[in-house]
Amino acid sequence: MTTRDKLQQAATVARNMAQLTDEKVAAILQDTAEALREGCSEILSANRLDLARMAPENPKYDRLKLTEERIDVIAGDMENVAGLPSPLGKTLAQWDCPNGMTIRKVTVPFGVIGVIYEARPNVTADVFSLCLKSGNVCVLKGGSDADNTNRKIVEIIHTVLEQYGLDRAICTLLDASREATAELLSAVGTVDLIIPRGSSALIEFVRNNARVPVIETGAGICHTYFDKAGDVQKGAAIVNNAKTRRVSVCNALDCLVVHRERLADLAEICAPLSRSKVTIYADREAFEALMGSYPHELLLPATETSYGTEFLDYKMSIRTVGSLEEALEHIARYSSKHSESIVSENRDTITRFEQAVDAACVYANISTAFTDGAQFGFGAEIGISTQKLHARGPMALPELTTYKYLIEGDGQTRK
Amino acid sequence: MTTRDKLQQAATVARNMAQLTDEKVAAILQDTAEALREGCSEILSANRLDLARMAPENPKYDRLKLTEERIDVIAGDMENVAGLPSPLGKTLAQWDCPNGMTIRKVTVPFGVIGVIYEARPNVTADVFSLCLKSGNVCVLKGGSDADNTNRKIVEIIHTVLEQYGLDRAICTLLDASREATAELLSAVGTVDLIIPRGSSALIEFVRNNARVPVIETGAGICHTYFDKAGDVQKGAAIVNNAKTRRVSVCNALDCLVVHRERLADLAEICAPLSRSKVTIYADREAFEALMGSYPHELLLPATETSYGTEFLDYKMSIRTVGSLEEALEHIARYSSKHSESIVSENRDTITRFEQAVDAACVYANISTAFTDGAQFGFGAEIGISTQKLHARGPMALPELTTYKYLIEGDGQTRK
Repeated sequence: MTTRDKLQQAATVARNMAQLTDEKVAAILQDTAEALREGCSEILSANRLDLARMAPENPKYDRLKLTEERIDVIAGDMENVAGLPSPLGKTLAQWDCPNGMTIRKVTVPFGVIGVIYEARPNVTADVFSLCLKSGNVCVLKGGSDADNTNRKIVEIIHTVLEQYGLDRAICTLLDASREATAELLSAVGTVDLIIPRGSSALIEFVRNNARVPVIETGAGICHTYFDKAGDVQKGAAIVNNAKTRRVSVCNALDCLVVHRERLADLAEICAPLSRSKVTIYADREAFEALMGSYPHELLLPATETSYGTEFLDYKMSIRTVGSLEEALEHIARYSSKHSESIVSENRDTITRFEQAVDAACVYANISTAFTDGAQFGFGAEIGISTQKLHARGPMALPELTTYKYLIEGDGQTRK
Repeated sequence: MTTRDKLQQAATVARNMAQLTDEKVAAILQDTAEALREGCSEILSANRLDLARMAPENPKYDRLKLTEERIDVIAGDMENVAGLPSPLGKTLAQWDCPNGMTIRKVTVPFGVIGVIYEARPNVTADVFSLCLKSGNVCVLKGGSDADNTNRKIVEIIHTVLEQYGLDRAICTLLDASREATAELLSAVGTVDLIIPRGSSALIEFVRNNARVPVIETGAGICHTYFDKAGDVQKGAAIVNNAKTRRVSVCNALDCLVVHRERLADLAEICAPLSRSKVTIYADREAFEALMGSYPHELLLPATETSYGTEFLDYKMSIRTVGSLEEALEHIARYSSKHSESIVSENRDTITRFEQAVDAACVYANISTAFTDGAQFGFGAEIGISTQKLHARGPMALPELTTYKYLIEGDGQTRK
């Protein structure tokens, strides 16, 4: 089947998804989780074929590699999604109009959601479960590096769907080719939404080439502003946690913005970072403040590329500012509008920061590491949106729905 | 100033819009409405320059032409928006987490909204008032046909903004050039949202060229399905109203889908259409059913292009089907997902139609002419969204906002 035929088939199947009951969806996901556990050795065999084509020192290798434990986690996540409340059929608003017509705004699935991702086979199972639970058909375009693993996982999903008498197109895996990506990105009227998950290069490629609506996820250039009225203990803990908990995630800290009047505390704020061997790119004033206390070999002068960079590594920049407004200026210029934090004991300053910072998640006296669906209590997450249209920040099941208006009357016409 | 500089300036100004109180916004809009009335003769002079460049038989001529009455309506609409409730600062959700952090989801402006439109100078004032009321900066890219009129209206808006000590960039008018459009469409990170308003050619151009997120509006290929259990009186009134109330609007009827068992009633259902000289493109069965009763010169056989066409004219197609499912099939194939209606007295049939039809507005026993912000009770409308991301159907002030999460803690870090 050509990619175009596959997409057309997905759109046709999507039209009948509203007829699936939530009970049936939950049963399918439970059975699929079980089938993934039972198919563990087959999945691992397929995964070994993919791993054999990749050098172990490639940073993608660890994400590609599955183990029995990881498959168990993937199955557990699917069971978890099965048990979440359905986001469908919710009445968001309802009212009567003067002419006697009634209007009801109800949640419905998008239809067909395309997800483009790299060598992370767990995404295959995650996306299927979140899309099925929200009544959507998923079209998966995984990285070619993980193609054997993805095919095996989807084969297991298809077996379960067929046991329920359902169409395999509910979980459509495209060929791992550039042509398939191009077809997906231009499938206006067939695919309702595309979510790219992966590197900023992937996201930019999708943005530049998609004609289908896109939700961009995951690019995080995150700042923490240590204010004139900041608490040093809190600041040190928050900066260290946001930078070093996991450097490869999008909510990790990239730049500490510090008020000039608190440079004397900078050594204490940054002290925990040296334990994780974090390299600091400091502007002149911060450099001088850290000289002598922070390990010499980890302290470098900042250059213009030190700012606005998502490091995804044990690296961080520092910018010194003379005021809150100057900090806001710096953040507005370099932020990717993902997660930004302030450390301050001054309520007015916090309020101004919350109001002025344009980001999905604006934190006060807390680490940006909490930008995550599970931490927000959402139960599951398909990504962290960094755009403003439709969904911002952690996206869970409700964000995978849209709505329609149902208007009922008794023959009314408009004058 | 170059277009790029203008967009950059708009983005800078957008960062401080949250500081404008709703009282001040209302006062600005009231004063602008007054200033538009006072500037009436200047606006009409500018409008005459534009009209002089257009042939009066051009269908755009009427939309371009302003009169004292039309300017009064534009000013009245602005006063109306001034009095609507502010959509900003609403707490959409709020909760505490086990670690003690509190999360608040609050509505905020998008930032910079670009609107690309054709020769309709009323849009200039409408977009400014809706954007200002929702805390957004607007970037207007009007048609070159209306450039003198648009410049004069924006000049009046700027005068009022300056009286309030505000930056003119709050209402930014771009040059009416292709280069300005190209710059606007690719202003990722500067412009937050683009809404095209106009012909389907304009919308398609925007979709194919934008890298900034877009909300598509206004393309309506609308059906009415007259079911086996439909009421003839209601059907005749609804079809006539949906087709002939205003043929140039997006919610106008394009195709009547009729159940085969009700072909005997087709003449009665279509009878009112002949008074407005509606040309009908009927399939073979419908053609035969109408032969003899519907005016000969207005009855033509349908061709494949009769379906899936937005006529915007006194023209309509008819398709005969053997079942509800066949009707759903036809609608799924040709609908632009704007407004679809069923005429039926059977509750189960209505429910299935409402569930299966993928459109912003799904009607039962009522004319599609009601798809309109004012009819929905929204007070104002910036357009009718035909996509599923963010907003569907009539878009009013709440749809011109996004949200952010404000997370407050006391030094929490993540394990």
